[in-house]
Amino acid sequence: MKNIIIASTSTIHGSDYLDYILDDLTIFFNEVKDILFIPYARPGGISHDEYTKIVNTAFSKIDKRVEGIHTFEDPIDAIKKAKAIFIGGGNTFVLTNQLYKNNIINTLQTVVKNGTPYLGTSAGSNICGLTINTTNDMPIVYPPSFKALGFVPFNINPHYLDPDKNSKHMGETRETRVKEFHNFNTQPVIGIREGSWLHVKDDSIILKGHLTARVFEYSKVPYEVESGTELKHLK
Amino acid sequence: MKNIIIASTSTIHGSDYLDYILDDLTIFFNEVKDILFIPYARPGGISHDEYTKIVNTAFSKIDKRVEGIHTFEDPIDAIKKAKAIFIGGGNTFVLTNQLYKNNIINTLQTVVKNGTPYLGTSAGSNICGLTINTTNDMPIVYPPSFKALGFVPFNINPHYLDPDKNSKHMGETRETRVKEFHNFNTQPVIGIREGSWLHVKDDSIILKGHLTARVFEYSKVPYEVESGTELKHLK
Repeated sequence: MKNIIIASTSTIHGSDYLDYILDDLTIFFNEVKDILFIPYARPGGISHDEYTKIVNTAFSKIDKRVEGIHTFEDPIDAIKKAKAIFIGGGNTFVLTNQLYKNNIINTLQTVVKNGTPYLGTSAGSNICGLTINTTNDMPIVYPPSFKALGFVPFNINPHYLDPDKNSKHMGETRETRVKEFHNFNTQPVIGIREGSWLHVKDDSIILKGHLTARVFEYSKVPYEVESGTELKHLK
Repeated sequence: MKNIIIASTSTIHGSDYLDYILDDLTIFFNEVKDILFIPYARPGGISHDEYTKIVNTAFSKIDKRVEGIHTFEDPIDAIKKAKAIFIGGGNTFVLTNQLYKNNIINTLQTVVKNGTPYLGTSAGSNICGLTINTTNDMPIVYPPSFKALGFVPFNINPHYLDPDKNSKHMGETRETRVKEFHNFNTQPVIGIREGSWLHVKDDSIILKGHLTARVFEYSKVPYEVESGTELKHLK
């Protein structure tokens, strides 16, 4: 029953919020009018109200109405009653911390397993993996656990970035970081480039968008997969 | 009694491990022959032995002998008896996790407070701050706490990187990340660029190297400080 979009980013360079994926979202949210938005990741520290306003502006272009979960008295009840759910980007640690604090992890897992359409971008995509161990974000708060929603049986690395061969900076490349992850963990990691997303539909997991994605499997050489590839075998 | 070097990086582009700072380390480690090396951060997942070998090669140029803490039966005892300590870079989460696991945080704090010279680079510098909340590293393991050694009354951001105005990537700039940190925390953060370091000597904290550093104080506009600046007032 699952119906999930796991997008690398909300925004691609030079275009407005969600613009690059709005046509696909029109189809994805075809049967719903109202979307419950979870603004906990608070990009740049903006308020839940400010963030919800930005999202509402984008979704109004495809005639959807967005309500922020923070405006409901009972967030668990809000999720149970939601026709569709969107968790946006920002800081994955802040997001994860708030999901645990409000005790909504289990409810999210249940409703999405039972068919409530879920859209995640960036931090909202990170948490679709088994853990948040492959986020790019700064750990500005300490969440009670790195365990995430586990909508897919692997980890996500959104905003996947290829090494810059001209860089003189000594920080690790993204590929090096993910390889280090595999010194301590065995689940696969999918590096999704900006403009790409995974569409999870029942048991299928298809890469969408125009770009390839990079797959890191434990003790294997990383490889690229083309848009349209079925990834359900990865675990 | 404190005598600490907190360096942004072990290596600058185009030169060998520690080369850029070896002259200063000759003076810093003037009175010691043997250095205890803590290789827990394991850059790229290399073994403690491999890592110690790299460090030994560098320090042999200034006639120092390095022993890895992993070769001692009792790490707490090794730290107590050490004439000098070096913690190298790699992954800050892996390092912090191992420090807690081996229960050596308190001992490190005590001996460094009492005058054992301490050199940190990268991850080994991150942990000199109050917390590791401002590391750039991927959170590939979940440590029992983000609290760090607190050798200085603020946080460190090593490998500080200025925004790339030509980038089309939508990931947050370093400055944005540190600003987000200040939505949830109030201590200052010092962004130390590669090639710079802080020298903590008793109550003094001086920026060294040829570059400026970026200071982020809570609810203030970030600003640059010149090499040679005294930073002990920051807290």
